[in-house]
Amino acid sequence: MNIGIVGLGLIGGSLGLDLRSRGHQVFGISRRESTCEKAIARGAVDDASVEYSLLATSEVVFVCTPLGAILPTVDQLIPHLSPSTVLTDVGSVKAPVVEAVTPLWANFVGGHPMAGTADSGIEAAMPNLFALKPYVLTPVATTPPQAVETVAQIARSLQATVYYCQPDEHDQAVSWISHLPAMISSTLISTCMSEPDPVVLALAQKLASSGFRDTSRVGGGNPELKVMMARYNRQELLRTLQHYRHNLEALINLIEQEDWIALEQQLTLTQLARLQFVTDSEGS
Amino acid sequence: MNIGIVGLGLIGGSLGLDLRSRGHQVFGISRRESTCEKAIARGAVDDASVEYSLLATSEVVFVCTPLGAILPTVDQLIPHLSPSTVLTDVGSVKAPVVEAVTPLWANFVGGHPMAGTADSGIEAAMPNLFALKPYVLTPVATTPPQAVETVAQIARSLQATVYYCQPDEHDQAVSWISHLPAMISSTLISTCMSEPDPVVLALAQKLASSGFRDTSRVGGGNPELKVMMARYNRQELLRTLQHYRHNLEALINLIEQEDWIALEQQLTLTQLARLQFVTDSEGS
Repeated sequence: MNIGIVGLGLIGGSLGLDLRSRGHQVFGISRRESTCEKAIARGAVDDASVEYSLLATSEVVFVCTPLGAILPTVDQLIPHLSPSTVLTDVGSVKAPVVEAVTPLWANFVGGHPMAGTADSGIEAAMPNLFALKPYVLTPVATTPPQAVETVAQIARSLQATVYYCQPDEHDQAVSWISHLPAMISSTLISTCMSEPDPVVLALAQKLASSGFRDTSRVGGGNPELKVMMARYNRQELLRTLQHYRHNLEALINLIEQEDWIALEQQLTLTQLARLQFVTDSEGS
Repeated sequence: MNIGIVGLGLIGGSLGLDLRSRGHQVFGISRRESTCEKAIARGAVDDASVEYSLLATSEVVFVCTPLGAILPTVDQLIPHLSPSTVLTDVGSVKAPVVEAVTPLWANFVGGHPMAGTADSGIEAAMPNLFALKPYVLTPVATTPPQAVETVAQIARSLQATVYYCQPDEHDQAVSWISHLPAMISSTLISTCMSEPDPVVLALAQKLASSGFRDTSRVGGGNPELKVMMARYNRQELLRTLQHYRHNLEALINLIEQEDWIALEQQLTLTQLARLQFVTDSEGS
């Protein structure tokens, strides 16, 4: 298959590495010549260009730009595509993207491969990034089933697990398990920095170990990505943050009231509940 | 050296494995015969008993019971010890332990090896649990320097990094980097369970991946241990939780106001600040 990738960062570059290894011809677009050269050198694409015309014969095009650039990218891209081209994106928020792009391109399928690393850029691209990870597709009523199946087949060929849902269901779900954790984790770091006693702050920095490291990891990640989550999924993020604030206040109350029995019941419930989200013991 | 260990769980058992491998004679006390037998079978102790008299000739005794059991254990233990015996504990809160035990035993040194796993009990004991981990000692003005040095030498022989501070400084520092993370992580799990739409909740559970797993890990750990942290370090934990709530409200405000520039500045600061607590990239 002739496949185009717009945006040659961690996701676009990793996608290219995998697709080429599965025998596809892959053509990449980047705003920068230097990124095109790096992507070719790394074997992530067969050819790359700053000009969209390189994708004129692509059967499928993945838009792998940051969230805020998806719509302008699609606007500039579609004059170069044949109408049968299947267009998909990898943005981490789906409702605003699907609403904006669907009227512009009939064969558009919203997508979100839930994979990443702490690093970014073509230098960070790696094979098998998507293997055993969720890959969410968010077709709407008007999306051609054949277009959905084309993207799903590619996702499965990457060994990803494909899930289908509505765009707003996706945005609600990722707000709970991805965007909310990013915000509360970031708040942990800023809060620890607020210790006024320099002796205690220095000691805390020395003693911080696996518990702090794991709880603060996503909070210490890419700031631009988190701002995009907050901008494009603002309503859902605010809803989950309000729930969180409410539950935090309830927990503080239990400790203030010294209600240790209720606190232990609550903590036992959350210990069990976690197993409904993550069943592996990796990282513990 | 003849070393006693009271409480043969993860910490006591792991300590025994390491001390025996360094050539010490190790004697263990447990409330249960079956635990004594398991500890002997695992090679964590040379001998074990439910009777404190086994420790009559111990030069150093580690009290490795849960926090709430330290004081009653010391009360029962000291009639069996010779006055020169150095007594130390491994509790994760220090001020209340040091205040209570110091008047009872002159050669007492408060200690906190900051190591652990998700598992507990003698079955979970493992060699080298303390290697490259912080081991905090909290002597007070009246603590004999020779007693401190004895415990410090043993801690260093486990390849732990020894830190000295006042008991209340310890409790303030661990509240920031251990007790607060445990509470906010637990609150993340309970909050995610509060999604009222079963379709969205099921989707969130399917899509939860490394970000949720890491941020929720300490929240999904031992409930009894967290209740002990909250009971014995209540004042400090409440102080850090109030700071956290304040910072969370500020973050929610930025998102409500759509002040994306200030949000990105804030997230960039926290990204940099994290490196002052954890410098490794393990787990990211």
